[in-house]
Amino acid sequence: MKFTARQVAEMLQGHVEGNPDATVWSLARIEEGAPGCISFLANPKYTPFIYTTTSTVVIVNEDFVADKPVPCTMVRVADAYSSFGRLLELYNEIKLNKTGVSTHAAISSSATLGENVYVGDFASIGDNVKIGSNVKIYPHVYIGDNVVVGDNTTFFPGVKVYSDNIIGSNCTFHSGVVIGADGFGFAPLKNNVYAKLAQIGNVVIEDHVEIGANTTIDRATMGSTFIRKGVKLDNLIQIAHNVEIGSNTVIAAQAGISGSASIGPNCMIGGQVGIVGHLHIAEGTQIAAQSGVGNKVVEPGTKIQGSPAFDLGKYQRSYVVFRNLPDLYTRICDLEKRLNELEKK
Amino acid sequence: MKFTARQVAEMLQGHVEGNPDATVWSLARIEEGAPGCISFLANPKYTPFIYTTTSTVVIVNEDFVADKPVPCTMVRVADAYSSFGRLLELYNEIKLNKTGVSTHAAISSSATLGENVYVGDFASIGDNVKIGSNVKIYPHVYIGDNVVVGDNTTFFPGVKVYSDNIIGSNCTFHSGVVIGADGFGFAPLKNNVYAKLAQIGNVVIEDHVEIGANTTIDRATMGSTFIRKGVKLDNLIQIAHNVEIGSNTVIAAQAGISGSASIGPNCMIGGQVGIVGHLHIAEGTQIAAQSGVGNKVVEPGTKIQGSPAFDLGKYQRSYVVFRNLPDLYTRICDLEKRLNELEKK
Amino acid sequence: MKFTARQVAEMLQGHVEGNPDATVWSLARIEEGAPGCISFLANPKYTPFIYTTTSTVVIVNEDFVADKPVPCTMVRVADAYSSFGRLLELYNEIKLNKTGVSTHAAISSSATLGENVYVGDFASIGDNVKIGSNVKIYPHVYIGDNVVVGDNTTFFPGVKVYSDNIIGSNCTFHSGVVIGADGFGFAPLKNNVYAKLAQIGNVVIEDHVEIGANTTIDRATMGSTFIRKGVKLDNLIQIAHNVEIGSNTVIAAQAGISGSASIGPNCMIGGQVGIVGHLHIAEGTQIAAQSGVGNKVVEPGTKIQGSPAFDLGKYQRSYVVFRNLPDLYTRICDLEKRLNELEKK
Repeated sequence: MKFTARQVAEMLQGHVEGNPDATVWSLARIEEGAPGCISFLANPKYTPFIYTTTSTVVIVNEDFVADKPVPCTMVRVADAYSSFGRLLELYNEIKLNKTGVSTHAAISSSATLGENVYVGDFASIGDNVKIGSNVKIYPHVYIGDNVVVGDNTTFFPGVKVYSDNIIGSNCTFHSGVVIGADGFGFAPLKNNVYAKLAQIGNVVIEDHVEIGANTTIDRATMGSTFIRKGVKLDNLIQIAHNVEIGSNTVIAAQAGISGSASIGPNCMIGGQVGIVGHLHIAEGTQIAAQSGVGNKVVEPGTKIQGSPAFDLGKYQRSYVVFRNLPDLYTRICDLEKRLNELEKK
Repeated sequence: MKFTARQVAEMLQGHVEGNPDATVWSLARIEEGAPGCISFLANPKYTPFIYTTTSTVVIVNEDFVADKPVPCTMVRVADAYSSFGRLLELYNEIKLNKTGVSTHAAISSSATLGENVYVGDFASIGDNVKIGSNVKIYPHVYIGDNVVVGDNTTFFPGVKVYSDNIIGSNCTFHSGVVIGADGFGFAPLKNNVYAKLAQIGNVVIEDHVEIGANTTIDRATMGSTFIRKGVKLDNLIQIAHNVEIGSNTVIAAQAGISGSASIGPNCMIGGQVGIVGHLHIAEGTQIAAQSGVGNKVVEPGTKIQGSPAFDLGKYQRSYVVFRNLPDLYTRICDLEKRLNELEKK
Repeated sequence: MKFTARQVAEMLQGHVEGNPDATVWSLARIEEGAPGCISFLANPKYTPFIYTTTSTVVIVNEDFVADKPVPCTMVRVADAYSSFGRLLELYNEIKLNKTGVSTHAAISSSATLGENVYVGDFASIGDNVKIGSNVKIYPHVYIGDNVVVGDNTTFFPGVKVYSDNIIGSNCTFHSGVVIGADGFGFAPLKNNVYAKLAQIGNVVIEDHVEIGANTTIDRATMGSTFIRKGVKLDNLIQIAHNVEIGSNTVIAAQAGISGSASIGPNCMIGGQVGIVGHLHIAEGTQIAAQSGVGNKVVEPGTKIQGSPAFDLGKYQRSYVVFRNLPDLYTRICDLEKRLNELEKK
């Protein structure tokens, strides 16, 4: 994809200063530019780079005043920062604008597809599946029987969705995500043997959810595991059966949420955090990376750390003392000696 | 799938009280019922719900006495709780009863399949593979050359089994499981460069093993990595080369077992636990979530916690003091001051 | 694959003592031998086994002197240990020597393949992809548009490579690896809602890199995520956007590196370690398993432990005191009592 400075100006409702036919085909930071790249200048700290950049086009704020000759073509816009963000999005939309249904896909005759759906090579779509419009199903994706998918949702290569799950609109699933595998439920019998408990529930994922690569979300034993609107999950996260993740909660990579835990909305959960089952975590809770949460959190906006986790500030103060424990130990031994001396007197 | 109350009663060896033609097609908790649902009542705590439930059919104990009119049809059985469990299983068996071999699968001409095997779209089955009867191989599963699989085992979509591994009967593998990737073995050469050590062993998985989504089990360097009978592994677990997991041991999500560790039978290992390589963990050991095990465990039934892990009760008592370390620090400083004063006298 | 003792001797530049037509088809430790196996004897500790082994052929050092009759055929070589390693490699090379392009693969007409490339069933190769010679692409691998792959690189079944990534020569990717999924980048808007930041960068993986099963490496927001030459990553590792992993650094399973962190060369990072974003970790740093690194490491060769991590020796000394905190607590209480008594006097 190549664009002229004039086309970029039209997309961003700006105007060209320099060569309107200057052609770009890639995006770069202004300090890392190269011919054929488009960059932006918003932060004044980076102003010196505009006089030396090798980028072909640079987007600048309308009121930018150059005090030296500029080697590139400029596109002046109302807000260079947000315009560049918009450009990134457009670039991605064009790049990822796959369409059509591969002849190498296997689609059940009872499945229904909305308008403008992409289905890649070797995708497998089961019986009674309902897919919305503008959905992108990349190669090697599996959509099990009776799954419902809203509009504008993207499944990157190799996503696996078990049967009977419900998925919203404007969601993104990265490669290797598994939705709806059995919850980890076994009943102990005698002789240490376990009997499997049938897992007949499902997973419900609401709109505007993004789920990172190789993350797993188990189906409910009965009822549903819920991922509410706007949730963002990073890679390699484990969400167990019957969990509920509240709207707009963000979870970093490799965290794990045990069965039937319920996480409130607007929480921020750090990487490698573990949360015990059957707990409620209040709205807006922030949990430091690697913490292990063994108790419910009642107060909204609480910040916690540790394994087991408690108040973040207190944890950090305890840890300061922990780092000096050998010294403290010596001081206690010294106190004992001195006290022994005094007591002899 | 629809069933009448009469059919349900026959399956569970019970008898109908109400409309024998009442039809159900879904399962629900008694407090969350809906028309067309079947529920159960075992715990007396839930008795009030039977007078208000909108479920069409409710399974009750034979001796249940209603003291008000009941709006649903009842099926009376000897044990309502276990009967409902049996019903869940039957429901799942019927729902998951895929059969037939997809024309979109690629099966080596030297592979042999038992009776009543399901092979889904785009499954790939290698040379000399031997598959037992009633095995279910969902779409996108890969079974490498020379793999042997026992009867009644299920591979959900996208499971990858490298060549030469041996898998038992009545096992379940969830999506994204990888069996038999190379162990992580490299020999340091000069200049900080590493040479790969060939990993020529395999993985042996015995009967009645269940393995959760995206869990990885590496092949042995030489010999075998063993997963013994009845082991249950949750999602996103790492089992390294030459590990042995003893029978009926249960491991929660995101735990990792390093190379050549040997875990006894009947252990319970918490989520996100890490175990160092070349250790033996005694039978019946219980390891708290997020613990890091750096030493062997000799005594059967030991409970440990911490990173590094030691006795669970001791860890918890130490952690209580850890939480109050800043206060303890102040007390020590105070002692020192007071002792200084006394010594001056 | 079967070999005679004579053929083995030729491969290893050794000579046969015993039956040159003795045939072997498997490898085993000398203490676990069986007819048809080849073993080796290098460590004198294992010498007694050569008089009782049931292996058909044993590789021994040239100067080995048997003081009893030996039941097997021996192949004498200059260095039995390294010869056996070479034999393992040859065994694996022959076993994994897949060739040819499956008629079940989907390869874009604009993709180019080098010489002697293997493409397995249901592999999907995108537009403008460039694949080097002797590359092995197993079943269910996805190679997105514009990806470039060097010579002799292997993708085991189910690896997913998003578009625009660059992959070196002599690399190995195990099943379930995901290269180039979107970085976890979201900008908070009002009302706790997040806007996705387009992730338009890529991943660059240099030569001689091995990546374990189900590990995920995210693409850069802009620019590249770099995995330098000779890096070895174990299973289930998370590498976030814009990270750089220095050459010959080794990372154990389930570790996670947050966005824009830069890890120096020759580091050793333990299992389940977490590293905060935007940090630099100096060359040769060693990080103990389960540590959480919250600060940069400036001094090359530093060893650290803890969450948050600090000097390894200091952590271990602090942890010794931590284990005895309840006892220490009692001693402090005792000191206070005794001091109270003294002060009363």
